[in-house]
Amino acid sequence: MSVKVAALGGGHGLAASLSALRLLETDLTGIVTVADNGGSSGRLREELGILPPGDLRMALAALCSDDDWGRTWARVLQHRFVGGGSLHDHAAGNLLIAAIWDLLGDHVEGLDLVGELLGARGRVLPMAAVPLDIEADVHLRSAPDRISVVRGQVQVAGVDGQVVAVRLDPLDPPACPEAVEAVLDADWVVIGPGSWFTSIMPTLLVPQLRDALISTRARRALVLNLQEQVGETEGLSPTDHLEVLSAHAPALNIDVVVADTSVTDSRGTLAGVARELGARLVTADVATGPGSDQHDPRRLADAFRPILDSTL
Amino acid sequence: MSVKVAALGGGHGLAASLSALRLLETDLTGIVTVADNGGSSGRLREELGILPPGDLRMALAALCSDDDWGRTWARVLQHRFVGGGSLHDHAAGNLLIAAIWDLLGDHVEGLDLVGELLGARGRVLPMAAVPLDIEADVHLRSAPDRISVVRGQVQVAGVDGQVVAVRLDPLDPPACPEAVEAVLDADWVVIGPGSWFTSIMPTLLVPQLRDALISTRARRALVLNLQEQVGETEGLSPTDHLEVLSAHAPALNIDVVVADTSVTDSRGTLAGVARELGARLVTADVATGPGSDQHDPRRLADAFRPILDSTL
Repeated sequence: MSVKVAALGGGHGLAASLSALRLLETDLTGIVTVADNGGSSGRLREELGILPPGDLRMALAALCSDDDWGRTWARVLQHRFVGGGSLHDHAAGNLLIAAIWDLLGDHVEGLDLVGELLGARGRVLPMAAVPLDIEADVHLRSAPDRISVVRGQVQVAGVDGQVVAVRLDPLDPPACPEAVEAVLDADWVVIGPGSWFTSIMPTLLVPQLRDALISTRARRALVLNLQEQVGETEGLSPTDHLEVLSAHAPALNIDVVVADTSVTDSRGTLAGVARELGARLVTADVATGPGSDQHDPRRLADAFRPILDSTL
Repeated sequence: MSVKVAALGGGHGLAASLSALRLLETDLTGIVTVADNGGSSGRLREELGILPPGDLRMALAALCSDDDWGRTWARVLQHRFVGGGSLHDHAAGNLLIAAIWDLLGDHVEGLDLVGELLGARGRVLPMAAVPLDIEADVHLRSAPDRISVVRGQVQVAGVDGQVVAVRLDPLDPPACPEAVEAVLDADWVVIGPGSWFTSIMPTLLVPQLRDALISTRARRALVLNLQEQVGETEGLSPTDHLEVLSAHAPALNIDVVVADTSVTDSRGTLAGVARELGARLVTADVATGPGSDQHDPRRLADAFRPILDSTL
């Protein structure tokens, strides 16, 4: 019997955790932040009033079946138009998902269909049923003494200042019911890696989803990023990352914090702060190489294997 | 052993002949005119410099497998965006085909992949390897006494006047080699129904393809339209349609002309002109109903069955 895992986040971070977890043959559900307002997703959201499809597409592509068919269709869906015209930078998969949603009128049914096309090893769901916006309280470098409000995922991700907290607009969006169910039904919940304020914190701010994350019988693993992200987490230490999480979801316990061995210098403090969340710290070589900001799916899978096994 | 059929044309006419011929479990290849310059196809052709994908998409959708999977994906590919933005009126399948061509760099490989997605009962190929333009000699209603030149499929299809002849620009485009091969290898070639000057005549004007149509060992069937088309064939009788064909491809013999029984009033003349092309006239109820301009796939299949059987 395979372990049921719900992995939360967005963008390249979630694609990395899904790529790792699929190697462990888990029963896998990706739950995706839908607050993107930039690039192809932002334009589609603006033009068609739909959920931003980009991070959902990327998560689905990460789950494609490991054969010619799955890999070819993943490449097709990830392919972006160039040429400077009205289609420039649109990913084919974003357009396809948008068309399918328009036709079927159901987010989950549409994503399941794309998952079938890819032979996806798992399911991908949006965290909320409506498009969201991120609003951040920020100490801007240009006005460090007061809190400024910055709005938009792209704007927060690239902010020149220190983000203090984020919230969603609307504050109380309806969660995707299937995502809530996946969290409640999971053996493990995996949060991160990913853009801390714009991909990870939002998954803790949809009320029904946060309640499910708190009340689920699942164990909870948090995967820390390998590096600060220029803009939104500049100057934020790994310990700070945990404290940000704690501030955004005070009632959420974590069982395991997974960090790369390169964070050893602050390991003592980090383990202590992890303990305050209820978590043990697991360190392992999970980067693609020294100094890399990307998780290696196989190494991350190796780090996860004993963690998931420990509850079987 | 199934009969090998190559069906030529474009738009709704080719979709109708393919829908009929698939019912006869033929080994089927659709060969599609690529001169469209309007709508979604025209915009994609203009923006990306690609073959207009619309008629190829429609032909593929007509061949989708007759199950939930095939029908669902056909609906997705046929679905058009609305909303008035930059995607307005683009068919999802046009965008997908464009992305696949961009990624794979090969028209035939790309169309075969979309065919696989649809579980297509046959193959769809472009008639030429480059986008084409149609130029027509026309007696415009506003200048009936001289020949005016009208350029563009959309412009010719909607012309206010009488079309005399069409030609391609470039005059000598490279044919799609697989299309030439399909014609040479066929037991039957089916030409029409469809827009006579803008979909059907162009298939006779690509030199390598025309040579194949003339030299193939296949029998040749021509399916006449049910009605004149406002614009390009206004005032053109069924007999005139045959004479137009003869003028555009003088060396091409036809074995069978298929016409709806509603053309009975001119049957004597029509049969005579058909005989000049080497053809016998077959009349049958092939319209969806009295006065309809659309062929009913099942009735057209019933009309084709004895024709194809006659050569087994």
